[in-house]
Amino acid sequence: MNTAVTDTQSLIETSTFLRACRREPVDHTPIWLMRQAGRYMPEYRAIRAKHSMLEVIRTPELAAEITLQPINAFGMDAAIIFSDILPPLVGMGLNLEFVKGEGPVIYNPIRTVADIEALQTPPAEENMGFTLEAIRLVAAELTPRGVPLIGFAGAPFTLASYAIEGGGSKNYEKTKALMYQYPDAWDMLMRKLATVQADYLLNQAKAGASALQLFDSWAGLALGMQDYVRYIQPYNTLLFAELEKAKVPTINFSTGTALYLDEVAACGGSVIGVDWRIPLDLAWEKVGFNQAVQGNLDPTVLLTDWETVKTKVDDVLRRVNGRSGHIFNLGHGIFPNVPTDTVKRLVAYVQEQTSR
Amino acid sequence: MNTAVTDTQSLIETSTFLRACRREPVDHTPIWLMRQAGRYMPEYRAIRAKHSMLEVIRTPELAAEITLQPINAFGMDAAIIFSDILPPLVGMGLNLEFVKGEGPVIYNPIRTVADIEALQTPPAEENMGFTLEAIRLVAAELTPRGVPLIGFAGAPFTLASYAIEGGGSKNYEKTKALMYQYPDAWDMLMRKLATVQADYLLNQAKAGASALQLFDSWAGLALGMQDYVRYIQPYNTLLFAELEKAKVPTINFSTGTALYLDEVAACGGSVIGVDWRIPLDLAWEKVGFNQAVQGNLDPTVLLTDWETVKTKVDDVLRRVNGRSGHIFNLGHGIFPNVPTDTVKRLVAYVQEQTSR
Repeated sequence: MNTAVTDTQSLIETSTFLRACRREPVDHTPIWLMRQAGRYMPEYRAIRAKHSMLEVIRTPELAAEITLQPINAFGMDAAIIFSDILPPLVGMGLNLEFVKGEGPVIYNPIRTVADIEALQTPPAEENMGFTLEAIRLVAAELTPRGVPLIGFAGAPFTLASYAIEGGGSKNYEKTKALMYQYPDAWDMLMRKLATVQADYLLNQAKAGASALQLFDSWAGLALGMQDYVRYIQPYNTLLFAELEKAKVPTINFSTGTALYLDEVAACGGSVIGVDWRIPLDLAWEKVGFNQAVQGNLDPTVLLTDWETVKTKVDDVLRRVNGRSGHIFNLGHGIFPNVPTDTVKRLVAYVQEQTSR
Repeated sequence: MNTAVTDTQSLIETSTFLRACRREPVDHTPIWLMRQAGRYMPEYRAIRAKHSMLEVIRTPELAAEITLQPINAFGMDAAIIFSDILPPLVGMGLNLEFVKGEGPVIYNPIRTVADIEALQTPPAEENMGFTLEAIRLVAAELTPRGVPLIGFAGAPFTLASYAIEGGGSKNYEKTKALMYQYPDAWDMLMRKLATVQADYLLNQAKAGASALQLFDSWAGLALGMQDYVRYIQPYNTLLFAELEKAKVPTINFSTGTALYLDEVAACGGSVIGVDWRIPLDLAWEKVGFNQAVQGNLDPTVLLTDWETVKTKVDDVLRRVNGRSGHIFNLGHGIFPNVPTDTVKRLVAYVQEQTSR
């Protein structure tokens, strides 16, 4: 679906995805899927059968290979570098492991102000060099093919919640208790995380990422509107301001924030990632039409039959109503049990249906 | 805080809680807490050390004793019968157990249309007689003391999600796939559940419950706005219409529905239960002032120091601004690790601060 190009400048000008980020007219609505390089693909599972999660992330050749798998199989309009949001915490001093069947575990979670003071802020080249190298490898492969690569990082709040809870969480009790009771310690923690993540994202752009997505995956599940404005917004705003130096489109993704998407959008981002809990037309209205939107098919829809998928995709497209600046995506990451055939049909369907 | 009364009619007229449900002026803002009879109380843990969850629920004397514990210890303005939302599923044909450390498990979850057709709709007296008897015992004790008793049941969607997933869930994948792909089967399931729950709630009122709360605890975490309107609203509306026969106040509680509280309120309920994700003044505006509201202190706040708790309570009260028809509560159930002293101070503080 992409015109063959040979250099970065041509990529920037012609990529459907990058044009949509800038709200320029496109020949079809670009599509990519959060977690498109992942467990639903047999090619991915074959690699993971031989290597742990951290091994794969830390081996640029493997991370690059996984990044390319969905592009080669399904022809999405953008790739996203294979990594995870948590590895940057390791160089800050946190002892992270991905435990099979349990997900990420941090063995020395943050519990005190002293723990926060002790957190390091190492430069990205030292802390996340393997991902930066993977980006270089993928960009060298994809730029000539006219496919842009998205770099990403976790937002300060989502990282803080993992660091404080010691892993995934249902109620974010420890995180919020610290935040409510020790606002100065919270401020220090969020600034350190914003510093590390801004540097990491800027270096991803330097390594060849054509766009940068910030994942604030737990923001709205953990915090209500007032708390978002007080405890997240200042730091995400700071971060997006820093990212302007990269001169690439930025995507501001969060979930559970439908009620206050205007406050989310106010933090920054060329594109606002919209989860599946709000109709896309209402979401865009709340965001304002001077920012692009990305989303928002409910990921559970991909577990149903093709007729049902089509109806739901049509509904998303109908709500966009041809306006420039829409990137098709799911409203959250794709599930591991989605049939690859459904993904294949979805990508082709969106590209064909919106072809103009 | 309650005037001594001797009969049901006096209770209805004088109870601060029941008056607030009807948006009548009150001498102080009534307060009760979701899961107030529960694990944070040593008296409760002492009983549970000797009896399983289902044993306690099925023994009216024990359920009654637990219901009274927080009233006697902290003087809340309303009691809520001790039970769980899931036991009504047992008589419908589902094999339920509460597994220690895991929560509820249903060993024969709904997977096919035939499973839905096979579901029984037994009358409440036969299916939930033990809880109805517990209500009679508690009402006999509390009515003379001027304390109303709240009956409750799970909303059809929340029950359906447990029945289909076989327990708690993160993404509600099976529930939503069934709902999207088989709308007729979904309709049959939701109607059966609405029938059973309406009968159960009406019988709770007959047994002595002075108010009825419907818990749609997972509605907004599982479904976005469009899906709520299509797959939940018709059935909750049916149910609240049925409940009018009881001639007692009804409370419509859900979480994650901040964006579309107007659609939630449209289903019915004298009182709309508001979770902690939205400022209460904005919530009430969305609900409309012809319905009362209940909420909405973030439960995590009770894990902080008293000064922090007070600030957050003051913020909730400030947003009510003295309007009639507010019942103070948490925005979701109290956590097991909340200090009892904090609960004691919270109840007294709300009652004193709002005393007029």
